[in-house]
Amino acid sequence: MSHIISMLKTHPNKPNDPDLQKLADCIAACFECAQSCTACADACLAEDMVAELRLCIRTNLDCADICNATVNVLTRQTGQNPSAVKAMLEACRTACQQCATECEKHAGMHEHCQVCAEACRRCEKACALLLAAIG
Amino acid sequence: MSHIISMLKTHPNKPNDPDLQKLADCIAACFECAQSCTACADACLAEDMVAELRLCIRTNLDCADICNATVNVLTRQTGQNPSAVKAMLEACRTACQQCATECEKHAGMHEHCQVCAEACRRCEKACALLLAAIG
Amino acid sequence: MSHIISMLKTHPNKPNDPDLQKLADCIAACFECAQSCTACADACLAEDMVAELRLCIRTNLDCADICNATVNVLTRQTGQNPSAVKAMLEACRTACQQCATECEKHAGMHEHCQVCAEACRRCEKACALLLAAIG
Amino acid sequence: MSHIISMLKTHPNKPNDPDLQKLADCIAACFECAQSCTACADACLAEDMVAELRLCIRTNLDCADICNATVNVLTRQTGQNPSAVKAMLEACRTACQQCATECEKHAGMHEHCQVCAEACRRCEKACALLLAAIG
Repeated sequence: MSHIISMLKTHPNKPNDPDLQKLADCIAACFECAQSCTACADACLAEDMVAELRLCIRTNLDCADICNATVNVLTRQTGQNPSAVKAMLEACRTACQQCATECEKHAGMHEHCQVCAEACRRCEKACALLLAAIG
Repeated sequence: MSHIISMLKTHPNKPNDPDLQKLADCIAACFECAQSCTACADACLAEDMVAELRLCIRTNLDCADICNATVNVLTRQTGQNPSAVKAMLEACRTACQQCATECEKHAGMHEHCQVCAEACRRCEKACALLLAAIG
Repeated sequence: MSHIISMLKTHPNKPNDPDLQKLADCIAACFECAQSCTACADACLAEDMVAELRLCIRTNLDCADICNATVNVLTRQTGQNPSAVKAMLEACRTACQQCATECEKHAGMHEHCQVCAEACRRCEKACALLLAAIG
Repeated sequence: MSHIISMLKTHPNKPNDPDLQKLADCIAACFECAQSCTACADACLAEDMVAELRLCIRTNLDCADICNATVNVLTRQTGQNPSAVKAMLEACRTACQQCATECEKHAGMHEHCQVCAEACRRCEKACALLLAAIG
């Protein structure tokens, strides 16, 4: 997803920021997680045992909505909105952690839960790294 | 927005919940805030003094994205995802507070900022009340 | 949802537009439909017969995403983007029609499908009226 | 964005579909376009000549919302919702075309408009290819 860093570098505020790569990585991880969660919710819905996957579908849908909003919030570089950015990163990290934990319960049986859990863990980690970087 | 409580009451988990009205009120406040922020960002963009309203537009857009995600997360009643719900309510409260503070600076000059700031303050309060109710 | 018309009236382009009420009605109908569809998908997921409601959940989720995007597109009044607005209204009308048809199949058994189908039909009609008005 | 095809292949309906790669390509192009448009709107907002970029910001924001909804609709493979999918692809193609045309006007002066216009053109083409494939 090299377009993310390309777009960040064209911003007129010219963010010569040592954390720009961490930011781009977090945006990419949030999209990967959002799209994987939307797909995993849909794949769970198509399983014979859908009734046992209700909580997984619900945590997937919550995580997708939260990650998609986080992509948008992180992308904006005009002005400063640090407390909202940090609170959103915290919410995203929490949603990814919850969704990963739920998907991991079904990962041995459903490959979509395995792939999705990995995307959630990468996003959880990317949010934590960015939170640490921006203080 | 009476459809919100109507839909909540039809859920098979039949939430005979003393906090159901607070939940419906918070969902309504989040939508009102999201739509007002989208409209305020757009109205600021059309003002002659748009260059002085950059931060207002940015906080509006962040707030709209966060409120829209919160509507979806709060609407879901299947299973339990409490830590993500709480973190999202915190993020929403913070984004509303920041956006209200910014809009209030321009409220004397631009009616859209005045109306939007009021929607943000109502949503900030609704999130705080729901957070207190769900512990 | 009187805040919608209030915000539209504060826009600096001062749209002294005979269709402003139709626009506000359509925005309100799109939100009502989006939130009802998100709630109906979640309520279907909690039903014992969830396996028979898969298509209903899928059309609900599609309709919610499309209606939420339509709220944002319709809210913006700065500049002109008529072909995108019309194409989005067409997509929204189609998604609402499909979702209503599917929900109506289950309306006798599940009240959430009944309430949601009505919201979809109102939104389908509001999109058609606005499309007719804007030519 | 190899995770997109990975997730599609894990779906229980096992779509042994000759168009699966076109679908994955279109989802990737929609995300790339959505994120580029969100970034371009924000970069335009930070430019000295923001007043001359109003329509560009507006078409960027519309395009981002439409592309994000399209990602979600295209990702779902459970059941069939073909008329809504096609209408959404048409809306997305139209929004990308409009946004590309607007961004191209400023591409010589602003690199973010150049990069964004290219993402819009790729997405416009990906939507057209997928529409042709699914008939």
